Amino acid sequence: MSEETDNITPLLPGIDSPADLKGLSDEQLQQVAEETRAYIIDVIGEIGGHFGANLGTCEIAVALHSLLESPRDKILWDVGHQAYPHKVLTGRREQLPSIRQYEGLAPFCSIPESEHDIMGAGHASTSISYGLGLKEAMRKGIGEDGKVVAVIGDGALTGGVAYEAMHAAGGLQTPMVILLNDNGMSISPNVGALSSYFQRARLKPGLFHAREEVEDRLTRLPLGLGKRIERLGPELKSAIKAYWAPGLLFEELDLAYMGIIDGHDVGALRRALSEAMAADRPVVVHVHTVKGRGFAPAEDGGLAGMEKWHAAKPGSIVDGAPADSKPKLVPVQESDAPASIAPEILEKPEPKAAPPQYTQVFSDAIVSEAERDPRVIGITAAMAGGAGLQRLADERPDQYYDVGIAEQNAVLMASGIALQGGKPVCGIYSTFLQRAYDQIVHDVCLQDLDVTFAMDRAGLVGDDGPTHHGAFDIAYFRSLPNVIAMAPRDEAMLVHMLRTAIEYDGPSAVRYPRGAAVGVELPSRAEAIPIGTGETLQNGEAVALVGYGSGVEVALGAAAILEESGVRPTVADARFVKPLDTELVERLAVSHDLIVTIEEGVLQGGFGSAVIEHLEDNFVNPGERARVLRIGLPDRFVTHGKPDLLHKEVGFTPEAVADKVLAAVESGVAPRH
Amino acid sequence: MSEETDNITPLLPGIDSPADLKGLSDEQLQQVAEETRAYIIDVIGEIGGHFGANLGTCEIAVALHSLLESPRDKILWDVGHQAYPHKVLTGRREQLPSIRQYEGLAPFCSIPESEHDIMGAGHASTSISYGLGLKEAMRKGIGEDGKVVAVIGDGALTGGVAYEAMHAAGGLQTPMVILLNDNGMSISPNVGALSSYFQRARLKPGLFHAREEVEDRLTRLPLGLGKRIERLGPELKSAIKAYWAPGLLFEELDLAYMGIIDGHDVGALRRALSEAMAADRPVVVHVHTVKGRGFAPAEDGGLAGMEKWHAAKPGSIVDGAPADSKPKLVPVQESDAPASIAPEILEKPEPKAAPPQYTQVFSDAIVSEAERDPRVIGITAAMAGGAGLQRLADERPDQYYDVGIAEQNAVLMASGIALQGGKPVCGIYSTFLQRAYDQIVHDVCLQDLDVTFAMDRAGLVGDDGPTHHGAFDIAYFRSLPNVIAMAPRDEAMLVHMLRTAIEYDGPSAVRYPRGAAVGVELPSRAEAIPIGTGETLQNGEAVALVGYGSGVEVALGAAAILEESGVRPTVADARFVKPLDTELVERLAVSHDLIVTIEEGVLQGGFGSAVIEHLEDNFVNPGERARVLRIGLPDRFVTHGKPDLLHKEVGFTPEAVADKVLAAVESGVAPRH
Repeated sequence: MSEETDNITPLLPGIDSPADLKGLSDEQLQQVAEETRAYIIDVIGEIGGHFGANLGTCEIAVALHSLLESPRDKILWDVGHQAYPHKVLTGRREQLPSIRQYEGLAPFCSIPESEHDIMGAGHASTSISYGLGLKEAMRKGIGEDGKVVAVIGDGALTGGVAYEAMHAAGGLQTPMVILLNDNGMSISPNVGALSSYFQRARLKPGLFHAREEVEDRLTRLPLGLGKRIERLGPELKSAIKAYWAPGLLFEELDLAYMGIIDGHDVGALRRALSEAMAADRPVVVHVHTVKGRGFAPAEDGGLAGMEKWHAAKPGSIVDGAPADSKPKLVPVQESDAPASIAPEILEKPEPKAAPPQYTQVFSDAIVSEAERDPRVIGITAAMAGGAGLQRLADERPDQYYDVGIAEQNAVLMASGIALQGGKPVCGIYSTFLQRAYDQIVHDVCLQDLDVTFAMDRAGLVGDDGPTHHGAFDIAYFRSLPNVIAMAPRDEAMLVHMLRTAIEYDGPSAVRYPRGAAVGVELPSRAEAIPIGTGETLQNGEAVALVGYGSGVEVALGAAAILEESGVRPTVADARFVKPLDTELVERLAVSHDLIVTIEEGVLQGGFGSAVIEHLEDNFVNPGERARVLRIGLPDRFVTHGKPDLLHKEVGFTPEAVADKVLAAVESGVAPRH
Repeated sequence: MSEETDNITPLLPGIDSPADLKGLSDEQLQQVAEETRAYIIDVIGEIGGHFGANLGTCEIAVALHSLLESPRDKILWDVGHQAYPHKVLTGRREQLPSIRQYEGLAPFCSIPESEHDIMGAGHASTSISYGLGLKEAMRKGIGEDGKVVAVIGDGALTGGVAYEAMHAAGGLQTPMVILLNDNGMSISPNVGALSSYFQRARLKPGLFHAREEVEDRLTRLPLGLGKRIERLGPELKSAIKAYWAPGLLFEELDLAYMGIIDGHDVGALRRALSEAMAADRPVVVHVHTVKGRGFAPAEDGGLAGMEKWHAAKPGSIVDGAPADSKPKLVPVQESDAPASIAPEILEKPEPKAAPPQYTQVFSDAIVSEAERDPRVIGITAAMAGGAGLQRLADERPDQYYDVGIAEQNAVLMASGIALQGGKPVCGIYSTFLQRAYDQIVHDVCLQDLDVTFAMDRAGLVGDDGPTHHGAFDIAYFRSLPNVIAMAPRDEAMLVHMLRTAIEYDGPSAVRYPRGAAVGVELPSRAEAIPIGTGETLQNGEAVALVGYGSGVEVALGAAAILEESGVRPTVADARFVKPLDTELVERLAVSHDLIVTIEEGVLQGGFGSAVIEHLEDNFVNPGERARVLRIGLPDRFVTHGKPDLLHKEVGFTPEAVADKVLAAVESGVAPRH
């Protein structure tokens, strides 16, 4: 950041669109990149947000926007949590402090937000396919022609769909650039063969030039060796060249390869990209960057430092350094790394002595289960910290796998482990588990295998927004045969449900929300609960509030409000959406006028639908049973922002539920007793 | 097949389990393989079934079972339509004639069917992940230790999850064998870079030996060249070796590679596999086979011949040769290649002048749409014939892509095309589209992109069974925001709905069943229908039968039966499940006592749920509206067999619906007027 001080005039304040980068020298562009980095450290350190990945892409964003005419030319940022520099350079510099906040800038690229955000994405590994589609459409004369560059991290490259896309791009010879932003990690350190492949490649920084020169050098070998090698034919020469190049993997897929470029040298990036974009075929430009670049605690902390600083907590950085003296300002917990802890947890009315995060409760519970039963194997997909499997990884590495960003393989590998008699537990966010939907249907459920899905971040996740909300799992799990699906109302029930799922000899799913649990005492030992049973928590009259998972806390809150208005509702916890506790539902239906179902998932086909399906099927005369009012997420994608704000927006609060119940009571559906 | 005649004693009749292969010589095992092939040609030619792939794997199955101790050792057949020889050798020889038939052998591997069927699968690319899980569990001491071999075709290797699994196997160095059965095609000829990679590799049949010898040969070069090359160091030697080896792609992923082995030489297979299984790391054994081996029309017909004979129609082969003189016995139509045409089409009561297949109607309609609008681009995933895109591929190749077995990439590529202003249509079976669920949610629907999904094989597909039934798409599409979802009641409506979907500027889905359409006249021109509108087809009293897609034909049939019993029901076609025609539903609800919803999909969260959700939400007093009876697929996976049998089993027939309605009428729900 020293460039900004002394006599150098800052350039970033003059960059209001990519056009302002045109005509600047490499040195000036380098300065813009470094000012962008300093600006991001200042802003994100103060307000929180994705951090490490964005510090690594400042030069890439500057180089691309200086060369291309966005949005005619398409720059595709895979995942998008590396796209803050791009946002800064495309007219959103002054809005950056609003990022991830309600009605502020989106956490990832967002098509409605800017013409320069070509695609939207919060799930990894999609950009090459998008680029393929864009460029192929251009080749067919659809829309305006332009260059296409997909910027993808080495972590995202482990996702199978990225490979599918490279395979297709190679086959079609689609002229596009795949900028591989290789920083040696996804969020957790990368795993698997690809990681060690890149590791080997990174050890040879001079490769780009070496490769160009090797043929020449070979033919100039002394003692006539060069001439003799030449006589062996061009194939041998290619072979020898190939040895020096780390791009074999790509070249085998018919993608041209250039690398390794220093991703923090704007001039080098511009030269390589210009060359790659001039080619009439797909080109991989392999760029090495440092995640957390320019922020010593992330850059120097090794892999642990990097995962820690993937996202920064609000106020965690002051004057470019960690503000780690104050407890409130420590870096984000590993257990919640991918989404920073929202301050509303501390601001909640009546904080119940700092309840633990659900993630933390799961993290401890899975370790207990693994200690109890050596067949329990935790599997995650590049989310050891976020999904609560880091402690298991540390303490019982033999009962743990991280497959990288490869949810499909995670679920199938679990299927294989189950076939062998193991008890695999896939700890994957609700939203990311969507990637493995077919494996859930066709492998786990159809084959009736003993796999447990532990879905963290089920419901509205907050700042990360619609790509990360877990809105659909209740509906889709419920439609599948053989599986049992449940959700805990509090952290104690999570412990019991994990045990229940693991003990159950078949597919099972448990969902729980992001953030703090309720604050009840944790049980001294986990006990399986009877499959398909709910619980009545409070007996009342006329109105029965039936929550599922986080809906129970809302139900209890609504009941408290309603009691002030003279309505004392029954409150029940359904616990299972599949199999549904039909006995409980029927009992409530005949003894109440109104059943209110409350779930943090889409209403179409969700828990409430399960209730009305059962009642419709089993009551010949609909007039003989309670009416059902369903509360849940609406039939639209919900924006980003603090969970409290989002819950208010969609009416998933005790107040909103109480209002709806009172309106129903007024209208005569549920007479006040 | 000449081996069976003359003086050679047949061996196959003595092979009742893999144990019977132990101790046989290579020559005897070769004979068993050839007898197995002849037997399959005879049986499948007569009864129909998957054909080409199975003729290619006879020697592989014999070699594996002669070396391994199944089921302790795990042989994993990817997809399983190459597993007939395995079934023949594992005690199911005499049951083979029952394959794909109701209560007969399953079309793919089936865990409940045999202890030798280690995994079940009808979707491609899963076997390596399963093997990974099995072997990793063994390494942790779970279950009995054994060898693991995943047999996967080159087509299945284009699926991203196979790559995810290889990546993980390389990273973990899991000792397992990946037998790459390379016959140069999946079902359609393979596309993409991997295909040309294998093509290049296949051109060098001597490679396996060459590779072993090359180092040696190099150091023995004349004129001291060898010594000098040696002096350049082992790295140069590796480079030169690498040139000769076609396994670079795998070696880059840290998988050892052996190839190319003649997949029809049992002795060569046994030698290579023994070596591979002795290694303490993952090994790819690259085997070249000929799909359709031993059956000249498939083997010699080039790629077209192979796709044609992927599956054989019943009675299409007599005495080992195509019975193509008789019209009933022609080879399976390309438009229906992956699942042979069921004879019930010809046996239906009152055949309506041979109605076309839905696939064929779609095939013609998409060509018309593409002619009308150059922005229309058809995309398929290795199912050009089956999904009805072959005609488009032939006539307008510029408006067509086959991405191989890579549904995720198909949908994302469509997203990219849509971003550029194109009108992509993904023609993918309902069951295979499940692979792209996350792309549907996170890319098409969340980004609100103009992508059309044309889902063939929606509902019960018949012989291919539960892995191929399209049971879940109604429920999962309905839970997603932004999308419109519809299903035609007949072939004319399919033409109109395809136009509707393409004209609609957003995500849209059309589902239609496998097999013959209804037999109505096709419209001279396609016309978009108003979004979210159903149609009343017949006005009646008390009972309203509301069909969705193929449910309408069932409704009309049930109405005819009911009229004989004095009940004249209203019949309506919902046309859209999303948005639902709520005006129609409400009108029917207030003017009838019973609404019967009929859909060929799971009931949980499906079309019927949409109807009751709307009624429950909008009728304060449930007693004021009709009761709803939902007909659809049950909450279990349905077996394989002829569609008529399966429809009977699950009660999805006019007769079963009429019975249920009459029972409701008797019970007083819907008084007879």
